[in-house]
Amino acid sequence: MALNRSARWQVSEQRRVEYDLVSTPDVFDPRNDALLSIGRVHEGRRFVVVDQRVHDCHGERIEAYFSHHRIEARIITLPGGEAGKTVDAWLRVLRELDAFPIHRRDEPIIAIGGGVLTDVVGFAAAGYRRGVPHIKVPTTLMGYVDASVGIKNGVNFDGHKNRLGSFQPPQRVLLDRTLLRTLPRRHLQNGLCEIIKLAVIKDAELFRQLERFGGSSVAAAFQDDAGAWILDRAISGMLEELAPNLYEDELARKVDFGHTFSYGLETRHGDRLLHGEAVLLDILASTSIARRRGLLGDSDAERILGLAGRLRMAPAVELLDGGLMWQALMDRVEHRNGTQRVPLPAAVGECVFVNDITRVEITTAIDRLHDWARTKHDRIPEC
Amino acid sequence: MALNRSARWQVSEQRRVEYDLVSTPDVFDPRNDALLSIGRVHEGRRFVVVDQRVHDCHGERIEAYFSHHRIEARIITLPGGEAGKTVDAWLRVLRELDAFPIHRRDEPIIAIGGGVLTDVVGFAAAGYRRGVPHIKVPTTLMGYVDASVGIKNGVNFDGHKNRLGSFQPPQRVLLDRTLLRTLPRRHLQNGLCEIIKLAVIKDAELFRQLERFGGSSVAAAFQDDAGAWILDRAISGMLEELAPNLYEDELARKVDFGHTFSYGLETRHGDRLLHGEAVLLDILASTSIARRRGLLGDSDAERILGLAGRLRMAPAVELLDGGLMWQALMDRVEHRNGTQRVPLPAAVGECVFVNDITRVEITTAIDRLHDWARTKHDRIPEC
Repeated sequence: MALNRSARWQVSEQRRVEYDLVSTPDVFDPRNDALLSIGRVHEGRRFVVVDQRVHDCHGERIEAYFSHHRIEARIITLPGGEAGKTVDAWLRVLRELDAFPIHRRDEPIIAIGGGVLTDVVGFAAAGYRRGVPHIKVPTTLMGYVDASVGIKNGVNFDGHKNRLGSFQPPQRVLLDRTLLRTLPRRHLQNGLCEIIKLAVIKDAELFRQLERFGGSSVAAAFQDDAGAWILDRAISGMLEELAPNLYEDELARKVDFGHTFSYGLETRHGDRLLHGEAVLLDILASTSIARRRGLLGDSDAERILGLAGRLRMAPAVELLDGGLMWQALMDRVEHRNGTQRVPLPAAVGECVFVNDITRVEITTAIDRLHDWARTKHDRIPEC
Repeated sequence: MALNRSARWQVSEQRRVEYDLVSTPDVFDPRNDALLSIGRVHEGRRFVVVDQRVHDCHGERIEAYFSHHRIEARIITLPGGEAGKTVDAWLRVLRELDAFPIHRRDEPIIAIGGGVLTDVVGFAAAGYRRGVPHIKVPTTLMGYVDASVGIKNGVNFDGHKNRLGSFQPPQRVLLDRTLLRTLPRRHLQNGLCEIIKLAVIKDAELFRQLERFGGSSVAAAFQDDAGAWILDRAISGMLEELAPNLYEDELARKVDFGHTFSYGLETRHGDRLLHGEAVLLDILASTSIARRRGLLGDSDAERILGLAGRLRMAPAVELLDGGLMWQALMDRVEHRNGTQRVPLPAAVGECVFVNDITRVEITTAIDRLHDWARTKHDRIPEC
């Protein structure tokens, strides 16, 4: 019986994180087996959470799909929209799930909806029995190019966006572009803001294509060839940024462009702003800061500021507020472990990180943006 | 603008999972820097959650510790015990945490308490901002040899134990054996049941030492040399089982011995049974099943059944109930993805997994156990 007086044990293991995203048109067609491509089918059960509006349009097809494949499905609906991203919604999903026994590993939960729904359901899947698998089917553009691409989920809490959540990879993301067909213009533009973000900080070619075809692609609800190209390019770009940093071990993230000041704007004006609309306001403010600092030349700044107008978006610049945005930055400093790490554009398609933005700088940038909005508003081409 | 008509993206990344367990006597002594061995100290803040009873005994020392090191600490208390393992307790911790800004990465949450407390706080750390680091300081034997060793956390939900939770490695576990000194005998025996479990299914040498020194070590609250050896051996054994399977990718787990039927017993009799006491009842029932199947010889079965008596434990065998235990097994089947995967002892120190336990078998095993308890009760040596 040998004694070890200074015992110490070290655990060091590798874990593989794997998932895929698959384009699969008409995902509710019973001949398309993508929805059942993971997990057991024979005697299988599925817990399915569908956005209320998607259920209004596609509920019967979804039910018929599972009946056709003899799957015992429990289908529940959740309201979409930021107001539904709550601990209560999360607990409701968990209670319904707990009332419908599923195998822990081979009967994945299926989340069909926008970014809010897949975030709430992903967080429920992450917390149930310490994690059960899930599949995401984004039905909004925001979900398609942003929320579904990575492994983050969450709910709002205590007045803060996404304050609770986890990193939990889906097993698979099913991308059915035809579902975007019926989206209202405002929601297409909402998702488009995340594509703009990506173009500004890392993809000059995507930016050029947005300048040329962004307007027509929105009009075609991304069902045209240019729209398909833009979506593929945006997803590829997102994955280039996210995949090597899935758990945000590196806190300086290009994809946080547009996600510093927007945090406060969205919290304060949640009744008025969609997520992408707040992101666009942040993009404009950040661009104005970068220009004032001399990080960004005038012509590139004009192109970035001008793109929103070209795409017939009307950002609510009157909501920009120095105090609110400074507070948002302070919260992001805690989130980014004590340092600002704010991505700012250094050209169209390039970015740098800065750690020394001042409150005065924010206020000045907003003032310049208001001047710019007044003078430019009339002559931005609406294409 | 090349189009990709059958787009598919695969994400495949490795993630390293690392933490350590360190023996560190007198962890609240200001000269011991273990509590601050991870994270920033200069201008540092710490959110600390302490079990109410531990705070009654050590609260002043804990506060003095952080003052001494000029750390701005927010110390909150939680009641221990299974009744406190709730979603409400989890949300309370999260609200208090959100009111005390900490850096996301270098100001780890410190959880000081038993298994329930470290499970609740670990789950809060896992969910806050999608995961902030935490350190565990177990103050009960159950925490010391079991709950703190792995990466699981959780709360009870919807009438089910640990139905919500996550896998979230702590950054470090600080093992201060002197904290066990003041534990009541019942709580020492509670943790001892997990050590017995481990001995039965994988460590014949540990079993022998428990037969020889288990009783005296409990009497010495594990402050003696034999007690130290038993604790080290138990932690090493647990880690051998847990480390290669941190996320339970393999669902047939030896450490689930004693954790099949106990699940129902604990849910039904939570007011009467501590976790380890329910585990011990399961160990006895499982041993009886294994003996009836001929998996286990009579003399090994007698040694296992007899150990509880040697250690002056009095398992409440009258609570064993066939219907309840069958229901618990059915739930475990969902949890183990459709198969029983029940570990049964094949000798002292060895186990096998079975998938075909019947309801009748459980009832018969309980009957035999009742017979055995009646005949043996008087002549089990109390050492």
